[in-house]
Amino acid sequence: MKIALDAMGGDHAPAQVVAGAVRALREGYVRKDELVLVGDASSIERELALLQWTEPVDIIHASENIGMDEHPGQALRKKRDSTIVVGARMVREKKADAFVSAGNTGAMVGAGLFFVGPLEGVRRPGIAVTFGTAKGPCTLVDCGANVHCQPEDLFIYGLMAAEAMEGMLGIKRPRVGILNIGEEAEKGNPLTQRTHELFSSSNLNFIGNVEGNVLFEGAADVVVCEGFVGNVVLKVSEGLGHVLTTMFKDEVLRHGGAAAGPMLKQVLGTIGARTDYAEYGGAPLLGVDGLMIICHGRSDARAIANALKASRRFIESDVNRHIVEGLRKMPAIRNEGAAGSGA
Amino acid sequence: MKIALDAMGGDHAPAQVVAGAVRALREGYVRKDELVLVGDASSIERELALLQWTEPVDIIHASENIGMDEHPGQALRKKRDSTIVVGARMVREKKADAFVSAGNTGAMVGAGLFFVGPLEGVRRPGIAVTFGTAKGPCTLVDCGANVHCQPEDLFIYGLMAAEAMEGMLGIKRPRVGILNIGEEAEKGNPLTQRTHELFSSSNLNFIGNVEGNVLFEGAADVVVCEGFVGNVVLKVSEGLGHVLTTMFKDEVLRHGGAAAGPMLKQVLGTIGARTDYAEYGGAPLLGVDGLMIICHGRSDARAIANALKASRRFIESDVNRHIVEGLRKMPAIRNEGAAGSGA
Repeated sequence: MKIALDAMGGDHAPAQVVAGAVRALREGYVRKDELVLVGDASSIERELALLQWTEPVDIIHASENIGMDEHPGQALRKKRDSTIVVGARMVREKKADAFVSAGNTGAMVGAGLFFVGPLEGVRRPGIAVTFGTAKGPCTLVDCGANVHCQPEDLFIYGLMAAEAMEGMLGIKRPRVGILNIGEEAEKGNPLTQRTHELFSSSNLNFIGNVEGNVLFEGAADVVVCEGFVGNVVLKVSEGLGHVLTTMFKDEVLRHGGAAAGPMLKQVLGTIGARTDYAEYGGAPLLGVDGLMIICHGRSDARAIANALKASRRFIESDVNRHIVEGLRKMPAIRNEGAAGSGA
Repeated sequence: MKIALDAMGGDHAPAQVVAGAVRALREGYVRKDELVLVGDASSIERELALLQWTEPVDIIHASENIGMDEHPGQALRKKRDSTIVVGARMVREKKADAFVSAGNTGAMVGAGLFFVGPLEGVRRPGIAVTFGTAKGPCTLVDCGANVHCQPEDLFIYGLMAAEAMEGMLGIKRPRVGILNIGEEAEKGNPLTQRTHELFSSSNLNFIGNVEGNVLFEGAADVVVCEGFVGNVVLKVSEGLGHVLTTMFKDEVLRHGGAAAGPMLKQVLGTIGARTDYAEYGGAPLLGVDGLMIICHGRSDARAIANALKASRRFIESDVNRHIVEGLRKMPAIRNEGAAGSGA
């Protein structure tokens, strides 16, 4: 097994990314001979030295880096020696089983589509983000790879994310729902209505439409939606969580005084562990012929280490093979998907 | 001025609704001769008596009630003597300036469209929900009246909500943004791209695209989106807020013990006042020729009283006249809107 890590991607690269790699090595999430760091070799070596990591680690030098705000398409065309292009090519050429990056999300999606290529039977890959709810993890897909989706895309997202949750988190027959504005089958728009029919005629553990208010109650294990909606939901949740946590902190200190400090720290620590995106360590771009894991731009060492651990689980549990086998049982979906016009 | 209130609408009707009316009367939000209660006359009289309200209040008897889970279209056709049909007709016939209900949202939207009718220049009314952010109120529109929108609809929502915020909350030249998955003008989908052009060529205080993560930071005063997206965002926020608040409460009591109880109560009280939907008292269905205010199904007396207060401000500040005048200055939008095919 080989897992390539973009040492230069993200707001806190290379320091936090390399620290995450070392953390994963020390914790035994990955073995030395399984990890490949991609990026500026001298920067990576300097970070490793600062962390007092003296054992050999494979480094693939990449002279360029795609910035967080660069236009993904243009950057992928121009920067052929960027970490994301180099990492994606390693996956395509089977020199790596996975490529993990906290860099430019759009560039990761583009590299997955154009360099790695789609998995058999999948037309459009989707970003599957897992977060904590009151009852356990929930995976929302698509979170932005595919702004506008066809019903077949949403169905395939549900099937893929169910396989990923079963393989990576050990959740048996995950409950799959459609994010919608009402519970009844006919609610929503033509996209959700047709998707409801596809899921209803499948052997997935389909629980119907899921409204926004029960998403964080853990009403479903997998929730599908268009990329536009998923991206907005994810960012709104992140923003609201931050605002509420800040308000809570400020008010506890205002009403409880400094004496409330230690208690507050414990409370926020417990809640943080249950809601922190870093817990699940990055979002797989499901539906590519290999594994691309997209980490939050703000990833710290812990998030990177968890992403490496998650990559290992994905590969070991052979999620892609299960997805392909699952899709082979649904020839109608595959054909419709391939024939779809897109938009 | 006459404001009609659906005494039978909502999860806690008629008790909490009538209590809200009495509260509004006692607080001076509305005068006795301005309020009309619509619903089962004997139930309303009983509630008034329980609240020891002995002064005369106008009651319009309506023998039927549309349940929260009834199919809106069918219910509006069959229940011609329901509170929502009766209230909407009062607005149409100018017997009331406003109709306020915490009942079936779909039925309120349908009654607004078919009984009250659209305001000059508006094709599709939109639900404008105002909520608290870190920096002040923000109005999100549309929150579910119009699942699928045209660019002209979103533009008109922005114009209407800006007039409503200026009139009702005194916010001068509200900052208007488009909810999107990136900040740049070309981000998102054809709907957001074209809407961006429309706003850019208007004289509204347009600030561009707004991403989900800054919505609750108060990045804009008015944010426009399709009804599907707005409804999902609103419900996800409500659900996440509830889950996080419950976690805070549980963890503070676990780590701080019973001694933390009084402090916790103060903290949650302060945060509640800033984030509670009831603070802004219901969402106007903007774009109907009159005023329809849709309150949360869970509305308590305070929410109802605030909705009556908000209705008064809307009418007094002549929001609809400002909207019509604003739209008259944008003939291209009005024509395109009227010619649009809808979906």
